[in-house]
Amino acid sequence: MTHHFRHLLALEPLSADELTFLLDQSKPFQEIQRHPLKKLATLRGKTVALAFFENSTRTRISFGTAASRLGADTMNLQAEVSSLKKGESLLDTIHTLDAMKPDCLVMRHAASGAVNFVARHLDIPVVNAGDGTHEHPSQGLLDALTIRDRKGSIENLSVTILGDIQHSRVARSNIHLLGKFGCRFTLCGPAMWVPRELEKIGPPGASIRRVFRIEEALEGADVVLVLRVQTERLHEPAFSTADYVLLYQLNAESLRRAKPDAIVLHPGPMNRGIEISPEVADGPQSCVLEQVTNGIAVRMALLYLLIVGVPEEGAHPAVEAEASRNRRSTDVKDPSHAAR
Amino acid sequence: MTHHFRHLLALEPLSADELTFLLDQSKPFQEIQRHPLKKLATLRGKTVALAFFENSTRTRISFGTAASRLGADTMNLQAEVSSLKKGESLLDTIHTLDAMKPDCLVMRHAASGAVNFVARHLDIPVVNAGDGTHEHPSQGLLDALTIRDRKGSIENLSVTILGDIQHSRVARSNIHLLGKFGCRFTLCGPAMWVPRELEKIGPPGASIRRVFRIEEALEGADVVLVLRVQTERLHEPAFSTADYVLLYQLNAESLRRAKPDAIVLHPGPMNRGIEISPEVADGPQSCVLEQVTNGIAVRMALLYLLIVGVPEEGAHPAVEAEASRNRRSTDVKDPSHAAR
Amino acid sequence: MTHHFRHLLALEPLSADELTFLLDQSKPFQEIQRHPLKKLATLRGKTVALAFFENSTRTRISFGTAASRLGADTMNLQAEVSSLKKGESLLDTIHTLDAMKPDCLVMRHAASGAVNFVARHLDIPVVNAGDGTHEHPSQGLLDALTIRDRKGSIENLSVTILGDIQHSRVARSNIHLLGKFGCRFTLCGPAMWVPRELEKIGPPGASIRRVFRIEEALEGADVVLVLRVQTERLHEPAFSTADYVLLYQLNAESLRRAKPDAIVLHPGPMNRGIEISPEVADGPQSCVLEQVTNGIAVRMALLYLLIVGVPEEGAHPAVEAEASRNRRSTDVKDPSHAAR
Repeated sequence: MTHHFRHLLALEPLSADELTFLLDQSKPFQEIQRHPLKKLATLRGKTVALAFFENSTRTRISFGTAASRLGADTMNLQAEVSSLKKGESLLDTIHTLDAMKPDCLVMRHAASGAVNFVARHLDIPVVNAGDGTHEHPSQGLLDALTIRDRKGSIENLSVTILGDIQHSRVARSNIHLLGKFGCRFTLCGPAMWVPRELEKIGPPGASIRRVFRIEEALEGADVVLVLRVQTERLHEPAFSTADYVLLYQLNAESLRRAKPDAIVLHPGPMNRGIEISPEVADGPQSCVLEQVTNGIAVRMALLYLLIVGVPEEGAHPAVEAEASRNRRSTDVKDPSHAAR
Repeated sequence: MTHHFRHLLALEPLSADELTFLLDQSKPFQEIQRHPLKKLATLRGKTVALAFFENSTRTRISFGTAASRLGADTMNLQAEVSSLKKGESLLDTIHTLDAMKPDCLVMRHAASGAVNFVARHLDIPVVNAGDGTHEHPSQGLLDALTIRDRKGSIENLSVTILGDIQHSRVARSNIHLLGKFGCRFTLCGPAMWVPRELEKIGPPGASIRRVFRIEEALEGADVVLVLRVQTERLHEPAFSTADYVLLYQLNAESLRRAKPDAIVLHPGPMNRGIEISPEVADGPQSCVLEQVTNGIAVRMALLYLLIVGVPEEGAHPAVEAEASRNRRSTDVKDPSHAAR
Repeated sequence: MTHHFRHLLALEPLSADELTFLLDQSKPFQEIQRHPLKKLATLRGKTVALAFFENSTRTRISFGTAASRLGADTMNLQAEVSSLKKGESLLDTIHTLDAMKPDCLVMRHAASGAVNFVARHLDIPVVNAGDGTHEHPSQGLLDALTIRDRKGSIENLSVTILGDIQHSRVARSNIHLLGKFGCRFTLCGPAMWVPRELEKIGPPGASIRRVFRIEEALEGADVVLVLRVQTERLHEPAFSTADYVLLYQLNAESLRRAKPDAIVLHPGPMNRGIEISPEVADGPQSCVLEQVTNGIAVRMALLYLLIVGVPEEGAHPAVEAEASRNRRSTDVKDPSHAAR
């Protein structure tokens, strides 16, 4: 069974079935990341426009690397050097980029809904790389892929999310995705960051509870998702960074309340010693680097699906063919790959 | 009949015949922008250096995309991060770049004449991507290409240019080009921006008149070129942005004075609601997005001519061959393009 | 005889034999810079991560061009836009980059030892592109290659280094390399920049003397290495830029003390008229542009060796094969290179 995706703007509207399909499509691209040669020619001649109106290093490099491993070229527009400074409207900037005929737009913006707004005006596929506090769907997918690999399934897990959930598009994308597979959520953080409205996000009937003591929040957790603390959002001195560490840091001690095989995710960049302790960040339960590697795989799968479409057979023939060719060509000692 | 171009520094010294040749050379590359696969291998193994000493998003992305659609690699030097900050001379910076052996230099600089100066010291072809208030030849060409496509010809048109003509390299390149085809120019804007000297630019005998009322300036126009207003150049409060809007904005009402089939160009980025009203910017007479698309075609043609030379037959055999190959390869459902 | 290199972090630990090997490996890549088509497919499918935590234009473009001429893709992380601003640790940033599976890391950092520190935590090869005041090994190699080409050998030369030697990683890498070939060093500059400890750097038994008058320092020199002056390090008004020019500038007059066939190197960017006079910078003894061209060759050789390994025969079969193919393909007038 296959699905058609025009854009990828949010995980909220997708069914469990569609989400499973997206995760399954990422598998062959995970495989690719382990090969000595990781580049395919699938999107050769195609161009992916990366429009980042909000600073980002890792997400931009991840999408750029995904595009280039598929053989695509990229156009890079970053807010700092963009025409927006010159007063151009967002839609004019995007229409200008579109008139250069890219095959896909990957966009990040500080305003929730900005990417959806733009997508309504374009004929090419659009991927939301994070919009305000709304969603960050490729992050939700890579988190789910990481969880599925480690736990064997994403069904009926107990998921604890720690930190500033109110402002987190990562938390929302995770809840929208995992909630459709029966996961139960415990949200924990300072009260100002975990308002009551959050109990109503997620798919209908999703189990979401708020807990304000980390020990209680971690009790029985299968998955702990630690969010990055924006220290500038702490109301010093009323509630200081030191208070946060004391009350909400995930460390070896607090993690002991979770299940023994619980795993820890963090979207990065981590503030070591603030929301997460170094021994947990580097410990065996941490998945932070797997998340990064899976990010490339998920983004390759998304670009592939949105630009090329769903491959006809279950697996990706291109990927498999390429992979075996790559394996062979690196066996050869004389590195005389022809240039053309 | 073919022409040899060593550099493209300005349109002023080129003959009508040479300009027509450049426009004609752009046609097959316009074609390419409509193909599902837009990448050629013509400049594979070549490097285009992009040296932008003045901020630019669209022109830099346009030249970068043109290079990459021809198969070339790019070297990117931007003023903000360049050695110029460290006190290196412009010529040393450029000689350093040149010593890395690019095959062409595309350069933008805030000083009029800086690109010509640099070109005199280099053996590789140089393209002026805008220098001070002097010229922006690829913009002039893409504007002419857009006009020719819409009006069938660039001969003997009535062209009205609105705004800060004094500081506009775009206006100058347009006048130098279109003036050679018998176009008549009406320049209109606040008096400080349309000084009497402007009547003497353009080819000998060019018809250039200054008009200070927009209604009169637009009367009978075939082409309206709206320039971007740098609001920081308005002498508030003596002459405010609101005054500009009131007196010089191109809107549905003022455009009615032009011929019914008049077309509207703007080099972007637009200040919607200042020099141009939204209904004109988005209306059927507006060509702003065609200009952007044509920009890639013109720049591909220029890089091709300057690096490879004039193709032997009238048409580009490489382009045609490639194009048909591309059309075929996207018909195939199984995307198993080989990686090499 | 071949050598294995896991990383290239410093020249200090390498033997004369290993250094000669690295210089020899650069020869075929120097050849490549003279070909009309300079791109190989050797590293096609590989990714080089460029992590520059300190501003650099020329070194970053040089490594990027080297990677791209070998067919590799690049991932670009620059400090200005990086997560470091957001408080992430250096090691987390690098581990994140590494989790995206590049095949090599090229890194520059303002802290001496930062690159070695990072390399200890990674399985991929690491190239030091300059760390604090420690080393800049690829610069040392390109300087030596330039000297060897001009003087026929790097053995037993008299090398004068002018400027802020105390803070110069370029000086250190040069001393570590050339010192192993019996070169004798004269260090000259304001006393604060040429402290006594410098006499003890370099290989055991290296001849290093400090001289504070430029006329004496240049006496009999075969090679003059001029360092860039950071004018902000001059203690104005006690010791002004004008004082520096008067006392330490290399100009036609002071250069006359060196041997008639002495050559002049500068790592760039030059402050013309400060540490070097224009007539020397542009004179026949100056090698500054050869240094830049050789930089690409050295960096191609390093990336090749670290990612692919030592080619089996003495020469590079890939390079030779490619080169002849390139020569042929540019002979063809019809530029119909197939896109795939």
